[in-house]
Amino acid sequence: MKGTLSLGVDIGGTGVKMALVDRRGRIHQLQKFASPTKASPAVFLGTINRWMRGFVGRDQFRTLRGIGVGVAGDVDQAHGRVRLSPNLQWHNVPLKALLRKHLPPIPLVVDNDANAAAWAAYWVETHRRAKNLVCLTLGTGVGGGLILNGALYRGATGSAGEIGHMTIDPTGPACPCGNHGCLERYIGARALVERACQAVQEGEQSVIIELVGGNLQAVTPLVLQQAAQRGDRLARRIWQEAGERLGVALASLVNIFNPDRIVVAGGVARAGRLILAPAQRVMRRRAFPVPGHAVHLSLSHLDQDLGVVGAALLVP
Amino acid sequence: MKGTLSLGVDIGGTGVKMALVDRRGRIHQLQKFASPTKASPAVFLGTINRWMRGFVGRDQFRTLRGIGVGVAGDVDQAHGRVRLSPNLQWHNVPLKALLRKHLPPIPLVVDNDANAAAWAAYWVETHRRAKNLVCLTLGTGVGGGLILNGALYRGATGSAGEIGHMTIDPTGPACPCGNHGCLERYIGARALVERACQAVQEGEQSVIIELVGGNLQAVTPLVLQQAAQRGDRLARRIWQEAGERLGVALASLVNIFNPDRIVVAGGVARAGRLILAPAQRVMRRRAFPVPGHAVHLSLSHLDQDLGVVGAALLVP
Repeated sequence: MKGTLSLGVDIGGTGVKMALVDRRGRIHQLQKFASPTKASPAVFLGTINRWMRGFVGRDQFRTLRGIGVGVAGDVDQAHGRVRLSPNLQWHNVPLKALLRKHLPPIPLVVDNDANAAAWAAYWVETHRRAKNLVCLTLGTGVGGGLILNGALYRGATGSAGEIGHMTIDPTGPACPCGNHGCLERYIGARALVERACQAVQEGEQSVIIELVGGNLQAVTPLVLQQAAQRGDRLARRIWQEAGERLGVALASLVNIFNPDRIVVAGGVARAGRLILAPAQRVMRRRAFPVPGHAVHLSLSHLDQDLGVVGAALLVP
Repeated sequence: MKGTLSLGVDIGGTGVKMALVDRRGRIHQLQKFASPTKASPAVFLGTINRWMRGFVGRDQFRTLRGIGVGVAGDVDQAHGRVRLSPNLQWHNVPLKALLRKHLPPIPLVVDNDANAAAWAAYWVETHRRAKNLVCLTLGTGVGGGLILNGALYRGATGSAGEIGHMTIDPTGPACPCGNHGCLERYIGARALVERACQAVQEGEQSVIIELVGGNLQAVTPLVLQQAAQRGDRLARRIWQEAGERLGVALASLVNIFNPDRIVVAGGVARAGRLILAPAQRVMRRRAFPVPGHAVHLSLSHLDQDLGVVGAALLVP
């Protein structure tokens, strides 16, 4: 008998998350695991397999609707292969084949984690009403997923949606991807933290130093959020500039995609209005009026669980 | 009996083009008309109606498969209404209703001219093989059309594909659309001509002055092309810079859409390798490797007729 629950697995650089999710996107059970460091892909996936059996229960496996895996990286969905994942240091890993050999014959799908997040945003947050939806995940990196005409858009080789690597300023800072001035270099967690540390090291007064007890290694987007909420000028300026840069990118996306909805998620997005208010203001000012007013910009309610819920919902 | 030929009508700021086109996109008959100046939309469309009858032949009208109209502007396809056309100075014109009342009951579709061009590029130039195609029309303005998963992508309000108004440099020159640093402000015909005239007026030596007999009003992209082909340094620099800016935009589009194909058309594109060679070089350098190598960038063979052929092919 085909079950009603799917298992979602979200494989990221720092951890693995699993959830049992129903067809409405509700989480019935959730667990986080720390990624084994320095394990080879085969060993890592063997470990994930053991975790899955422990999480679902050995006998319940066959009652699952299926398993959906979201992974940070460039994924060939058709073959379930991870072409490249800088975060996991994976290169050409046959993820689906490696997982499949330990599994009963239930559906198994593999996709990019930002695609999974976009699918969850469409399915759960808009109840499949926003047929054209752009999802941005703001974390260490900036990921993107596109729902177009009610379907996940993957492009020619499954690599579509790399919104974090659209150019904001062609003469901007170098990005590890090889480009210059990528959106990620302005609003990714690493970029925000770098900017704060640099300003502090150059002698700018800020409550940030106090919040991290003098240890600049401990600065995170959450610290910058707390500093801004205390009225810290440096932190407020960093969020405002990040929001404005995001707004420039959103205006381009609005003019190109004319989406019904833009959903923003991820750790950096938890700053909420600190980043979204300037982003919305700049987006409205720069975008064409008709699509600029048609689009609804919002934070994800599912936030950090968007990826794991979306992975489960990708099971057909 | 349903015929095999459709009538395509391409309505632009300076002229109207009509063509009888078969289902393979071949032009059987083509004619250009100069737009009546200062005519109201109703009078203009009455004139177009008379031209159509003369062009097709009064008795042949009923044997047409249908009529497709492409118009420069923001079009509500569902209602056949032109929301806004800066080039035509139209605002909220019920184009389909105004044309329909003079026509027999054959299919009549109205769409944006760049959408029509993209449809022709997909249908005729790739034989519907490139399921994900980005089409750019480089003229006075820069238009765009998107074929995604083998269908014309229109977005939430039919305004999608405004690629000419993606931001290339947020601190760049003001654009009539209200944004700053739009792609159109770097590679549109007007921008190229402005740059040439400014350099010449500032005293830069160039064969351009000679080519236009001293009359800078007569500078066009074609003149800049001729000057560059003669080895003129100013003209070559203008094309190279335009190509590089185009390449920045193309890299973003490749990372976002992961298209099979990018087709470039329009008057400015006739400069060919002068603009496409630097564009391709910068695109390859800036885009992600997998989608950057998957995409094929080419000039349109149909060129100026892309819009009128596409309009005809939009008839279902």
